[in-house]
Amino acid sequence: MIRSRQNPKVKALARLKTKKGRKQAGAFLVEGPREIARALASPRVRPELLVVDPENVSPEEAAILAAHPELPRLEVAPPVLEKLAYREHPGGLLLVARAKALELHALPLGENPLVLVAVGLEKPGNLGAVFRSADAAGAAVVVADPRVEPFAPQTIRASTGTVFAVPFALAPGEAVRNWLKQRGLSTVATSPAAKTLYWEADLKGPAAILIGPEESGLSPEWLAAAERAVQVPMQGSADSLNASVTAALLLYEALRQRRAD
Amino acid sequence: MIRSRQNPKVKALARLKTKKGRKQAGAFLVEGPREIARALASPRVRPELLVVDPENVSPEEAAILAAHPELPRLEVAPPVLEKLAYREHPGGLLLVARAKALELHALPLGENPLVLVAVGLEKPGNLGAVFRSADAAGAAVVVADPRVEPFAPQTIRASTGTVFAVPFALAPGEAVRNWLKQRGLSTVATSPAAKTLYWEADLKGPAAILIGPEESGLSPEWLAAAERAVQVPMQGSADSLNASVTAALLLYEALRQRRAD
Repeated sequence: MIRSRQNPKVKALARLKTKKGRKQAGAFLVEGPREIARALASPRVRPELLVVDPENVSPEEAAILAAHPELPRLEVAPPVLEKLAYREHPGGLLLVARAKALELHALPLGENPLVLVAVGLEKPGNLGAVFRSADAAGAAVVVADPRVEPFAPQTIRASTGTVFAVPFALAPGEAVRNWLKQRGLSTVATSPAAKTLYWEADLKGPAAILIGPEESGLSPEWLAAAERAVQVPMQGSADSLNASVTAALLLYEALRQRRAD
Repeated sequence: MIRSRQNPKVKALARLKTKKGRKQAGAFLVEGPREIARALASPRVRPELLVVDPENVSPEEAAILAAHPELPRLEVAPPVLEKLAYREHPGGLLLVARAKALELHALPLGENPLVLVAVGLEKPGNLGAVFRSADAAGAAVVVADPRVEPFAPQTIRASTGTVFAVPFALAPGEAVRNWLKQRGLSTVATSPAAKTLYWEADLKGPAAILIGPEESGLSPEWLAAAERAVQVPMQGSADSLNASVTAALLLYEALRQRRAD
């Protein structure tokens, strides 16, 4: 058991708490039993190591350990796990894993695809919440012009681990716009200036919903590239909804129309 | 200008960072220009003091200061404002204010009311996000069985200050259930076990949407009290949406039906 926070292995793992460290190692940390379970259930995630603080293992975490005897383990004392963790009360288990976004051409699309394109989101929590909404609505995700990492701890947390379940690709804006055209996806931008309300738009066919950052919205380039623009009507004092809420409203409106069809 | 973090005035204000301190003083702190502006625009908020760090005042904050010459000010040095603030980069302005939730009987309801009842939410961030969705959809909010404060810093922040704009009442569950009956609001609970999909329910008339905590959902008592239960269909790996997303889906479905009518 490792008790020292200064142990070289611990120091190497602690580097995964920074963006730079994750980039250099090509790996990231997952915490929370729900998130770890979803990572381990994903064929796209390569688990490398379970970091265990036996003193603080919860029943849910014990079940994960029991289900994965094949994985290497590193036993550590409570202060070591706390050093590695992002949350305030991290429990007794962390996962070190590798995963990559898909290439655009490899993104699996069903017969009548519904895709959520998250454009230039600035907050990892927002990107994570968008994954959660897309997972619930059964949509694939494309992260365009990425400014935040899909496997940053805040993204994973806000996604409740669905970032490991939802098929997603990550690419620069231009490549995404070309791909959307090639794939024949009707692109629908959300904009407060649009005249059509989102429930007035026909979302029954193959569609891609574009969501921009909350403060600035979609750039003129993206708005110009979209075939249609729709508005989510705002009744109150605020002029924008959370990105994951806007995403869910449009995706579920598409589901509603498809089921009614 | 106060430069010492140990100044008695600063110490008194710092107590507002805790739940206990807010309860004792009957006041709270607001930070962020958007949130402060919404608080100052609300007839239900009583502003008491602006805490200003002149070195770090942003243009937005300067505009707020210019618009409110009537408010008392306390000038402080950067380390003092940082001590009082909740955010990592708090800017140069904090507001000390008082406000109360409305009594149920005083909640203003329109001709065809739409009310969001947030039942026993456990995270201030979730309650705040629910306020944001309700504001956008033009719904009043009732906080039933409150477990988190509406004016906690995390609630205010997640609400982007809409907690000051949306009319809301706060009351124990039984009182809320009685009020809903008296007011003739058709109560709609969200439950994964419900057979009706939410877009199949008629939400055109006076309605109250009940949202429970994400992990445990609505209690059997609340489910029994609801006239109808509806399901948000889940297509993915996760079994629940964020509370504010579920709230927005149901409120906007009600708007869609009302506009179509």
